[in-house]
Amino acid sequence: MTKKDVAGETPPPRAKRLPRAVRERQILDAAVRVFSERGYHPASMDEVSEVAGISKPMIYAYLGSKEELFAACIQRETTRMMEAIGGVVDVNLDPEEQLWRGVLAFFTFVGENRDSWQVLHRQAGTQGAPFAAELAEGRRRAIALISVLLDRAASKEGVGAFAEGQTEPLAAALTGAGEALAEWWLEHPDESPKAMARRLMNLSWMGFGNLVDGKAWHPEKQPEKA
Amino acid sequence: MTKKDVAGETPPPRAKRLPRAVRERQILDAAVRVFSERGYHPASMDEVSEVAGISKPMIYAYLGSKEELFAACIQRETTRMMEAIGGVVDVNLDPEEQLWRGVLAFFTFVGENRDSWQVLHRQAGTQGAPFAAELAEGRRRAIALISVLLDRAASKEGVGAFAEGQTEPLAAALTGAGEALAEWWLEHPDESPKAMARRLMNLSWMGFGNLVDGKAWHPEKQPEKA
Repeated sequence: MTKKDVAGETPPPRAKRLPRAVRERQILDAAVRVFSERGYHPASMDEVSEVAGISKPMIYAYLGSKEELFAACIQRETTRMMEAIGGVVDVNLDPEEQLWRGVLAFFTFVGENRDSWQVLHRQAGTQGAPFAAELAEGRRRAIALISVLLDRAASKEGVGAFAEGQTEPLAAALTGAGEALAEWWLEHPDESPKAMARRLMNLSWMGFGNLVDGKAWHPEKQPEKA
Repeated sequence: MTKKDVAGETPPPRAKRLPRAVRERQILDAAVRVFSERGYHPASMDEVSEVAGISKPMIYAYLGSKEELFAACIQRETTRMMEAIGGVVDVNLDPEEQLWRGVLAFFTFVGENRDSWQVLHRQAGTQGAPFAAELAEGRRRAIALISVLLDRAASKEGVGAFAEGQTEPLAAALTGAGEALAEWWLEHPDESPKAMARRLMNLSWMGFGNLVDGKAWHPEKQPEKA
C-alpha cells in the first residue's frame, strides 16, 4: 500500500498504466487507513496520496473531493461486508445454520477490518449529514439482504411467524443488534469473533426466553428443538 | 407553549418570576419542537424564543448557546425516555413481564414523542461530533439501565446463561435492536406501539429459533414453556 507510483507526482498521459479499477482500489485502501487513523477532519489528501503512492491530481480525477472520497470509502466497505456475509450464506442450509454463518461472517469481517469498520460506523456516524446518509443507505442495503434471507428461510420452512411482511422489521432489529454489539466490541477487543457471534445468536436465535430457562446457543452443540 | 412571557423581550430583574426549573422546561419544550421541525442548522434562537415565549437573552442565560441548548435537549429527552421505561418495570415481576413492559413503554414513549425521538436520534445522528457524543452517552445510560434489569432477572431466576458479565453486551444488542426498530417505524407510521413492541419481543424473547418453529410472542397468550 506504500508502493510509490512509478509516474511520480504528476503522471504524464503516457506513464506506465495500471487499470483504473486497480488504482481506485489502491486509493480506497489508503483512504480507509488514513481516515480511520486520523479521523475525517484531520486527515489530509496529501497523506492519502503518500500512503497510496498515487498523486493528488490523480486521486481527485478518479474519486473526487475529500468528501466524495470518504463517501466512496463507506460504500466500498459496506459492499465488502455484504459480500463477506452473502458469500457464506447458502440457501440450501437450514435457517439456523444460515444465521450462524452470516452472523459469524459479520463479526469475522469486523474483527479483520477494524479500520474499515471505524470508517463505516464511528467516523460516518460522527461527521454529520452527508456521511450519516451514506451510513443509512448502507444499513438499508444490509436490511434488504437479511430480509431476503429471512424470507427464503420462512418460505422453505413454510412458517407463518416470519411471513406477511414481518421479515423487514426483524431484519432491521437484527442489523441494529449487530451494529450495537460491534460497537460494544470496540471497547472489549479481547473478545473473539466467535464469542461475539454467539452473543448475537443467543439474542436472535434463542431469545431471552430460552436464556432464562438456562438454554444458551452453542455452535457445536445446537440446542434440541422443543 | 406559545404563551408570551409577561416581561416581553428584555425582562427587567423585577419582572414577574417563574421558578428557573419551569422556565427551563418551557425553553426545552420549545427547543425540541423547533429543532425537530426545522432541523438543527435551519432552526433559529429567535424561533425558540418565539415558541417558548421567553426572551433570547434569558434563553442564553439559562441554557447557553444553540449548540448547548441542543445538547440539553438530547439529555432531557434521554432522561424522560429512561424514566418512562424505569417507571413500568417492577423487579418483582417475572423477567418476561418486565421485558414486555419495558419494551412497550419504549415504543409508547417514541410514539407519543416523535418530536423528541427525532431530536434524540435522527438529528443528533446527522449533526456531527458533539451531538453524536451526546447520543452515545445516552445509549450508554440506556445500556447500563437494561443491563441492571437483566442482572436482576438473572439473579432472581438463578440462571447461568445471563451471568458472568454477559448482560452488558446483551443489553447493548437489545438497545440497538430497539433503536433500529424505532427508526424503521418512522417510515411505517401506521404501525401501533404494541405491534412494534411485539416485534421486539419476537426477536429478543422468542428468538428466530421459536419463530421458524411457528411460535410467535403474544402479549395476551404467552407461549407455553418448552
